[in-house]
Amino acid sequence: MRVLILGIDGYIGWALAQKLAKEGHEVTGVDNFYTRRRVREVGSGSLIPIATMKNRVSKFLEFSGKEIIFYRGNIVDPKVMYSVFRESDPEAVYHLAEQRSAPYSMIGLKQANETLRTNLISTMNLIYASKDLNPDVHIIKIGTMGEYGTPNIDIPEGFFEIEFHGRKDTLPFPRNAGSWYHWSKVHDSNNLMFANRLWGLKITDIMQGVVYGTRTKEISESGLNTRFDIDEIWGTALNRFVAQAVSGIPLTVYGKGNQKRGFLSLTDSVNCLSLVLNHPPKDGEYRVVNQFEDYYSIINLASTVKDVYEESYGGEVKVEHVNNPRVEAEDHYYNPERAKLREMGYRPSGNMREVLREMIDDISEYKQRLLSLRDVIMPRTRWKESSGNSL
Amino acid sequence: MRVLILGIDGYIGWALAQKLAKEGHEVTGVDNFYTRRRVREVGSGSLIPIATMKNRVSKFLEFSGKEIIFYRGNIVDPKVMYSVFRESDPEAVYHLAEQRSAPYSMIGLKQANETLRTNLISTMNLIYASKDLNPDVHIIKIGTMGEYGTPNIDIPEGFFEIEFHGRKDTLPFPRNAGSWYHWSKVHDSNNLMFANRLWGLKITDIMQGVVYGTRTKEISESGLNTRFDIDEIWGTALNRFVAQAVSGIPLTVYGKGNQKRGFLSLTDSVNCLSLVLNHPPKDGEYRVVNQFEDYYSIINLASTVKDVYEESYGGEVKVEHVNNPRVEAEDHYYNPERAKLREMGYRPSGNMREVLREMIDDISEYKQRLLSLRDVIMPRTRWKESSGNSL
Repeated sequence: MRVLILGIDGYIGWALAQKLAKEGHEVTGVDNFYTRRRVREVGSGSLIPIATMKNRVSKFLEFSGKEIIFYRGNIVDPKVMYSVFRESDPEAVYHLAEQRSAPYSMIGLKQANETLRTNLISTMNLIYASKDLNPDVHIIKIGTMGEYGTPNIDIPEGFFEIEFHGRKDTLPFPRNAGSWYHWSKVHDSNNLMFANRLWGLKITDIMQGVVYGTRTKEISESGLNTRFDIDEIWGTALNRFVAQAVSGIPLTVYGKGNQKRGFLSLTDSVNCLSLVLNHPPKDGEYRVVNQFEDYYSIINLASTVKDVYEESYGGEVKVEHVNNPRVEAEDHYYNPERAKLREMGYRPSGNMREVLREMIDDISEYKQRLLSLRDVIMPRTRWKESSGNSL
Repeated sequence: MRVLILGIDGYIGWALAQKLAKEGHEVTGVDNFYTRRRVREVGSGSLIPIATMKNRVSKFLEFSGKEIIFYRGNIVDPKVMYSVFRESDPEAVYHLAEQRSAPYSMIGLKQANETLRTNLISTMNLIYASKDLNPDVHIIKIGTMGEYGTPNIDIPEGFFEIEFHGRKDTLPFPRNAGSWYHWSKVHDSNNLMFANRLWGLKITDIMQGVVYGTRTKEISESGLNTRFDIDEIWGTALNRFVAQAVSGIPLTVYGKGNQKRGFLSLTDSVNCLSLVLNHPPKDGEYRVVNQFEDYYSIINLASTVKDVYEESYGGEVKVEHVNNPRVEAEDHYYNPERAKLREMGYRPSGNMREVLREMIDDISEYKQRLLSLRDVIMPRTRWKESSGNSL
């Protein structure tokens, strides 16, 4: 299949590109290196060194014999979106080209506005390019489980039947996100749902859990590595914990740590993203898919990392509770559904402890670099302090 | 009270400014004349001539002895938002400064993106200015009843208690809007709800019905007129019908006309907006208020206009069904609640037929101008044809 990946230079984007190319798809990608730039700005960088896009693509060709076509460009510019779409003539488009950090969106007004603009406009450009150039294209949009928040009722996959004052209807499940980033994803989901209602566009809207891990089976050579972020802004919970364990500093659990979230490994993420490609929605369908392996409390994840590390490497890993920089419930009900991917054949690829061991091995190779980055791990971006006063 | 009106040059903004000033409030307003410009671009203009902001303000001072302070500026620029907020030091801010046309947002990609940017960024700037400069300010945001769409169940005021799989929670009512404009208002509502959760901002989020009418009791002199739009893009249903009756062309009902919508007169709109100012939410409350006098089917409104016109002026008014340019249900259940404004003391100010007679009288004065504008009334902006191809 001809596949276009928006955001091909990212953590998931580059892992996905390799997987799909190896599966025999014709992969084109676009990126403007937004994440590389923004991560540098916070004094950090991918812990695991990554090659330039040009070198990645030629290394991948060398090792796999498969060509990945890359365009540098910003799809927030409609002209870039239309031109890449025309050139690649895709049958499916993955949209992974958004500002992806909740803390970044909460630094202040500038970042909040940048998040809204980047995410909503890129999705709107994709919607119109699809409508104008190939209304049969399968749009695969990466959203987040965080769109739902933590309601006191079960979380369905996108829609639910409700009874109210004695009448029934099937309606979008109310969203209740926890950062401007998460809300931008809700807004995107709403816009996609409406694009489907307007023009029958075929859409898979993925509510993805937090992704962890350093590799997939396609990442066989160091020149093919995908990025791995550990700083408080661009790194995510489990990845940060492993980095902390390896660098010998306490794992920082935000608040009580009873917050529950869906998680999945990078391998599972790209497996699921391949599955939805091969099991497309019906013509004219807008489909919401909850994508995670299982849900865990943050404190349990920290304990698991501690366990696995001490088991393999000895020593003692400390777990520390720090003031929660976020505004979120720390004790809550959580029961999201995830039937659709199972029906498509998704089975978790390995257990979390194995993946954690692999991560510890991979990260340990870059221990010196990690020690030099330790200062950017501790949370400094506080939801309560977000401000526009610096304007 | 010190009151800031964002969008003071608009249809409701200018009527509201006069009312609040006469009630003794200190009124400051800001506008960048966006609507004047955009209406000119479609070859139209306010049917009832309006003075420049400078002349309006001095005329109003002359007639009422009350000063209204006006700043020209675009609050999509955070610097403008912060500076106007600092200068006026408001106790309450009305946000009426958004792109307000559903058809405009559906012309194509350029207009869709402009609507998202203008509306979301202006609201975000207001959120941060309030948080940084006066977290106790009362934010009064004008949204639309169209945010809810037309679900098959009753529509509460913002939130409802639901039972799902045997558990209960009180959640935001699922929104299901019908244009990019309406969705931009949903996104704004969501962002405001979250701003309240983050920082306890005091917010009244108004889901307003369609406003009709040419005047309020404060508009006593022609120099004080507020704008009145009749073209397919900037004019709204009932206002357009009256203009069609006066110009002797058929009233154009979109589709079957069984679509039901909430409506209220301009007088009722500014009365309600004054009521919410005097009955603010509790500290730290995000309050959603459904604001309309009653709901009507479009076909019934057309019949009422026909009736009133024929009764007062004789002749025959034709009602024509045209292909619906929108994507919307034409037969649907509709039962929105509206208890909160009643509790604050809202009573409809007059019956619709009286207001329609007054409108017919006012508009008839500009019959020549109306005849020259007849070509811009018929719908040309079709939801199905919206495209970015002209980029």
